[in-house]
Amino acid sequence: MTIADPVLSPGVPFAKGHGTENDFVLLPDPDGVLDLTPTQVRALCDRHAGIGADGVIRIAPAPAGSDAFLIMDYRKADGSYAEMCGNGARLFGRYLVDAGWAPPGRVMFATRGGTRTAEVPAAGDVTIEMGPATLGVTSSAHVAGREFVGVAVDVGNPHLVCVTDDLTTLDLTVQPEFDSEVFSNGVNIEFVVVLGPDNVAMRVHERGVGETRSCGTGTVAVAAAHLAAEGRSTGTVTVRVPGGTVGVTITDGDSLLTGPAVVVASGTIDRDFWERHR
Amino acid sequence: MTIADPVLSPGVPFAKGHGTENDFVLLPDPDGVLDLTPTQVRALCDRHAGIGADGVIRIAPAPAGSDAFLIMDYRKADGSYAEMCGNGARLFGRYLVDAGWAPPGRVMFATRGGTRTAEVPAAGDVTIEMGPATLGVTSSAHVAGREFVGVAVDVGNPHLVCVTDDLTTLDLTVQPEFDSEVFSNGVNIEFVVVLGPDNVAMRVHERGVGETRSCGTGTVAVAAAHLAAEGRSTGTVTVRVPGGTVGVTITDGDSLLTGPAVVVASGTIDRDFWERHR
Repeated sequence: MTIADPVLSPGVPFAKGHGTENDFVLLPDPDGVLDLTPTQVRALCDRHAGIGADGVIRIAPAPAGSDAFLIMDYRKADGSYAEMCGNGARLFGRYLVDAGWAPPGRVMFATRGGTRTAEVPAAGDVTIEMGPATLGVTSSAHVAGREFVGVAVDVGNPHLVCVTDDLTTLDLTVQPEFDSEVFSNGVNIEFVVVLGPDNVAMRVHERGVGETRSCGTGTVAVAAAHLAAEGRSTGTVTVRVPGGTVGVTITDGDSLLTGPAVVVASGTIDRDFWERHR
Repeated sequence: MTIADPVLSPGVPFAKGHGTENDFVLLPDPDGVLDLTPTQVRALCDRHAGIGADGVIRIAPAPAGSDAFLIMDYRKADGSYAEMCGNGARLFGRYLVDAGWAPPGRVMFATRGGTRTAEVPAAGDVTIEMGPATLGVTSSAHVAGREFVGVAVDVGNPHLVCVTDDLTTLDLTVQPEFDSEVFSNGVNIEFVVVLGPDNVAMRVHERGVGETRSCGTGTVAVAAAHLAAEGRSTGTVTVRVPGGTVGVTITDGDSLLTGPAVVVASGTIDRDFWERHR
């Protein structure tokens, strides 16, 4: 049968993808013409009435003075701004290469947390610079009355990494208790089981969000704490999260996160939908 | 800044939209060339690693002998086939008109449950023929030990419509108990509060799914039961569901469901993603 191609009204370009099942709506806006409102972010992230995602990343011109051309303008599903996100940054790098905006290899871009460099091959896992991980004091969390002893790790945001013996029975539907004198701005809490040499599995309760399928800074915190527990300050650790598996390399004063980044679909957002949620 | 348009690899055309927040991935396939597997349906419906939806609807050539050109080839998120879906059928009609495949007005298409006619204006709510609603015996459901008396209604699939006085405190996270001798194949259970003359609100527990934002046949069952309780066999009832508001008209031997149908986005699914989930 012969039928014309669909001619839907011209809309707003987008792509959807994920890194270890932490998913994002990307809005390519190289001319910086999109006036993205918090209402639009919430509407796009709505998993039934919108496209559905954990956040929106606008691919926008970097501010004057930046040493990168483009900035990762990241907002969370609630419409609020966030500085950086390791899973989103890998997807950002993957999109630039897949879309032909950057050649495969080293890709530099700005974020609200500073300029970052990604290593994006023509196909396969993407590596992103995550900055230093700094170990802090010993503290503990409580889940259902049970104490989990852990170590504080700062990766630009606060983490508490607790080693345990079983991840399957943990109930993370409620906020674990933590020491609010140590973590006055809240904390992301990782529960870790050692699977083998430099090989761990984790679950994470993210500050203000709840349990998630993955948390990029959390995997870096876990790798740094795992190496420290073995008396090392550098090395590479394989970290299994509910949404997949990543590799984390801790170096002197920096860290690298390597993992999947997948563009699932691209196209245009209906213009009426866009205008209705201004 | 000048930058080339994205040149992502040519993919599989799709659209995403919803009717009262019951959401679908549409796959326009007018030449019938897509060999859609259950694995692909599950991958597309995955809300983190895919696009995310309650189901997939392929827009395919109708079988020989049909009096329509196109068939609504509907699969649920688990990959299984389903006959019809009132919310999906409204979206199907809306897409055909928005894409320029049918002029606004009466749009006829095939479904596994027979040929259906939709009334699709150039913009606004879509009306779909839902077939007859047949009232049955009185029965009851139990939620948390409390009995809810209701009436069985057949709308091609089985329903139990229970009038109550408060929807806010009902816990529908667990399967309500029902009489398995009356409903040997399971049952969709609607809980209804009367808001005013021919104006009701409902929540629904769908057979095999759990509570949902909307259920097209459920709204028809509720309208028929409401009219019957007032001694009428025909009329129009406004039905508020968690995902929006619809109008249901019960006529002699048929019913019409009118409600929103919104195409949110369209584009192409990444070819690698499509092939990887075969």
